[in-house]
Amino acid sequence: MKVMFLGTGAGMPAKARNVTSIALQLLEERQTIWLFDCGEATQHQILHTSIKPRKIEKIFITHLHGDHIYGLPGLISSRSFLGGSNDTVTVYGPKGVEEFVQTSLLISKSHLTYNIQFVECTDGVLFEDEQFKVIAKKLDHGIDSYGYRVVEKDLPGALLIEKLKELPIRPGPIYQKIKNGEQVMLDDGTYINGQDFLGPSQKGRIITILGDTRYTTSSVELAKNADLLIHEATFAAGDESLASDYYHSTTKQAATIAKLADVKKLLLTHISSRYQTEDEIKQLEREAKSVFFNSEIAADFIEVDIPKNRH
Amino acid sequence: MKVMFLGTGAGMPAKARNVTSIALQLLEERQTIWLFDCGEATQHQILHTSIKPRKIEKIFITHLHGDHIYGLPGLISSRSFLGGSNDTVTVYGPKGVEEFVQTSLLISKSHLTYNIQFVECTDGVLFEDEQFKVIAKKLDHGIDSYGYRVVEKDLPGALLIEKLKELPIRPGPIYQKIKNGEQVMLDDGTYINGQDFLGPSQKGRIITILGDTRYTTSSVELAKNADLLIHEATFAAGDESLASDYYHSTTKQAATIAKLADVKKLLLTHISSRYQTEDEIKQLEREAKSVFFNSEIAADFIEVDIPKNRH
Ligand SMILES: [Zn+2]
Ligand SMILES: [Zn+2]
Repeated sequence: MKVMFLGTGAGMPAKARNVTSIALQLLEERQTIWLFDCGEATQHQILHTSIKPRKIEKIFITHLHGDHIYGLPGLISSRSFLGGSNDTVTVYGPKGVEEFVQTSLLISKSHLTYNIQFVECTDGVLFEDEQFKVIAKKLDHGIDSYGYRVVEKDLPGALLIEKLKELPIRPGPIYQKIKNGEQVMLDDGTYINGQDFLGPSQKGRIITILGDTRYTTSSVELAKNADLLIHEATFAAGDESLASDYYHSTTKQAATIAKLADVKKLLLTHISSRYQTEDEIKQLEREAKSVFFNSEIAADFIEVDIPKNRH
Repeated sequence: MKVMFLGTGAGMPAKARNVTSIALQLLEERQTIWLFDCGEATQHQILHTSIKPRKIEKIFITHLHGDHIYGLPGLISSRSFLGGSNDTVTVYGPKGVEEFVQTSLLISKSHLTYNIQFVECTDGVLFEDEQFKVIAKKLDHGIDSYGYRVVEKDLPGALLIEKLKELPIRPGPIYQKIKNGEQVMLDDGTYINGQDFLGPSQKGRIITILGDTRYTTSSVELAKNADLLIHEATFAAGDESLASDYYHSTTKQAATIAKLADVKKLLLTHISSRYQTEDEIKQLEREAKSVFFNSEIAADFIEVDIPKNRH
């Protein structure tokens, strides 16, 4: 599980930072990639990475501002030419994403080789399967802007082979049942509990990716105990009133969310192009670190590993 | 008058070539820039040039395929933040451009600081003022695809000051009338013809920029005697039947148009990413040159001057 930042700028593209997009790479977990936001030229940024567009399984849109969605028609069309077929891409986002994408595809006469489906965002569980659960919650950005909490389910513990070998059974389908932690009857009529033959389970990871927002307690709820929180920081500390006027956050506000939510790591993105030099970026980072030490300012193309939790 | 290629690729962006856009820089003539097509990330390409988006006065769209229009919403929105105000941008193109742009702006809640108007393309004179005339004509691309012939009006000759000084008049408003080539009455009641006091007029230039198309005689009409013809060449010579199947042209077909139209220079664009190496590009150029010598394969960011015609 790795996060790759494809765009970390705000509002307009700049040479140093493209507009927003984040790739959550779940290659080990499910051989797919989930994209969060898709600003213009996200497909161009991808050309400079090892990401394969046909691996993109889900696209989560936080809100409908142009710097977060104008790359959708191009990416979705190109995916057809890049081997994306016989599968389905699901796009989650506020009402309007579907109309934008469908109008663009229709007018440009783009035909997809794969299925695309749209799920309109509401507060609550947006997606769930055996591996992952995604919870959405509205933030505070003037227009509907969502945060996403991606929860990996706990992984069952490994089968304790040596302990199993002491039982009068042979390897076979019964092993799978034990591995699933089920209760199983042995040949001699006695029962064993699969759970007793499993190592400790592994706690799933939590990644919280928020759309543009003011400082809001909804962010704390979404980020609670996350392994990684990705929060915008459009303004420097001290510009709180400006940030509020524009429905954005400062470095210190983002770091306060991280602290209150007790996350492991905070990455700040959506950095205004007014902060250009290395010194200015370092200063933003210092501001965040003064509130929450494990803070970092993201940059285009940085990749962050989210390590498995130890037992 | 200069042409800058902002994207010279076909279908999808590649590292070497972005999707289509061409800037006709009329800075000397009218302090503005006209854009032809606007593929995704055209505004990103512009970041690497001296082009100022607020100088963009007109955008001509040849056809609605995504690689020619997906950059419009971003460019149009960003222009607002880059000092584009109190003026009007006119977008010309086939029916559908307006719906695409307006839907994108509406859904993303983008408000422009300037006026935008749309003109639906039809065969004939699309625009005319004292300086320029633009003629559009439908090509052959499966969907409506237009070619544009930009005709600069002839420039009046320079005032022959020395000859004027021989007349019994003083410099003043009368000079302007003579400069306009009007008939003027002198104080002594005699008439002079302004034309007699002007040097030779300067022939205006003609630039023809065509959308994606098969080989068609419409292209010859649009390009007749042009100073510069920009024609697509998606396929290599020999692939004529493939080109026809996909409604595109080969290098030799484009060069044949240039030859039949008796243009001064041919620039080939919309180059497929199947041609990557310098050798392959040189080969495409040789194919074109074998039919029309003054041919060149365009590349992203090349700038071509269109010199004033000599008397
Ligand atoms: Zn934004
Ligand atoms: Zn094209």
